[in-house]
Amino acid sequence: MKISARNILKGKVLRIVNGPVNTEVTVRVSGGEEIVSIITRASAEELELSEGKEVYAVIKASHVLIATD
Amino acid sequence: MKISARNILKGKVLRIVNGPVNTEVTVRVSGGEEIVSIITRASAEELELSEGKEVYAVIKASHVLIATD
Amino acid sequence: MKISARNILKGKVLRIVNGPVNTEVTVRVSGGEEIVSIITRASAEELELSEGKEVYAVIKASHVLIATD
Amino acid sequence: MKISARNILKGKVLRIVNGPVNTEVTVRVSGGEEIVSIITRASAEELELSEGKEVYAVIKASHVLIATD
Amino acid sequence: MKISARNILKGKVLRIVNGPVNTEVTVRVSGGEEIVSIITRASAEELELSEGKEVYAVIKASHVLIATD
Amino acid sequence: MKISARNILKGKVLRIVNGPVNTEVTVRVSGGEEIVSIITRASAEELELSEGKEVYAVIKASHVLIATD
Repeated sequence: MKISARNILKGKVLRIVNGPVNTEVTVRVSGGEEIVSIITRASAEELELSEGKEVYAVIKASHVLIATD
Repeated sequence: MKISARNILKGKVLRIVNGPVNTEVTVRVSGGEEIVSIITRASAEELELSEGKEVYAVIKASHVLIATD
Repeated sequence: MKISARNILKGKVLRIVNGPVNTEVTVRVSGGEEIVSIITRASAEELELSEGKEVYAVIKASHVLIATD
Repeated sequence: MKISARNILKGKVLRIVNGPVNTEVTVRVSGGEEIVSIITRASAEELELSEGKEVYAVIKASHVLIATD
Repeated sequence: MKISARNILKGKVLRIVNGPVNTEVTVRVSGGEEIVSIITRASAEELELSEGKEVYAVIKASHVLIATD
Repeated sequence: MKISARNILKGKVLRIVNGPVNTEVTVRVSGGEEIVSIITRASAEELELSEGKEVYAVIKASHVLIATD
């Protein structure tokens, strides 16, 4: 599957925190940065996410803000 | 200013493409990845963005999807 | 690729409208509904979208609102 | 009320899962597809959602991604 | 129509800027603040927006960030 | 820090509701309106949010819908 999101960052799952409806997934991307994602718990289970698993953090360009100091 | 977005990635502006309403900004973050952002042209002008400028790509955790191969 | 978005609707591209930065893509999904999407023009070109092409409309659950009459 | 969202899909509530802050609502739209939505629990209560209730799934065009096989 | 968005702010259209795909709409809400919205041009035309028209700015709670000084 | 979001509304925290993963923060902005935000609980803790604290509600223009009666 190819997807229209401009930002597809390869990495590994670092940490998973489950709530009743949502799950917080932290991914360490190749460059070293950590990306935090909130997905539904059902999605996390369907993707069989676990620490160390290779994943992509996918972000639509219109959802990225730019800040300056 | 501190912001609630979990993802605040430091980088430099690599490329700017202007449309009449929106502007596409590509940022190379410290780890080497490129992040593409769509912001309003008015915002790009207010932030005085230009190639090479130090910026942050800011992304709310609930806007990040996770994909697996 | 499997993705955490809960909503992945199969369909065909019905119409494409290009702007300088963004492209509007209308997809007719199997059930008959039309789904309109705005993606970057660069993404539309990378995916080689054209009328009639089989695609998926992908929507994160936290981006869906519910309305009642 | 008329709303600027390009995607307003009529359907019926199929399933509701409550968390302490958020609620997951699954809607079966006319065409047969299921759409999953995460809204605040307070919103779900204000709309008096229950299984079988007629609702609309409302999605802004800029929140829809396109994927291809 | 009632909608699950927690934030529905009444106001008047102050300014409209059209691009080929998107339109930027500025709304002055009752409290005096200005809210800027990007919607598709097709939506702006369907809603027959014009300066001075009474409208609502509608924002899902999960799309609001919090910042501190 | 300056940020590309077009909507940065000054106000005070009115109410905080914690879930295991997410926190709902209600802000009363200067004009009197209440804005509800869902952020991660970790973000709420990092920002040391408490009732009465001065904050900004930050909203990207592409996340604002427009509705009419």
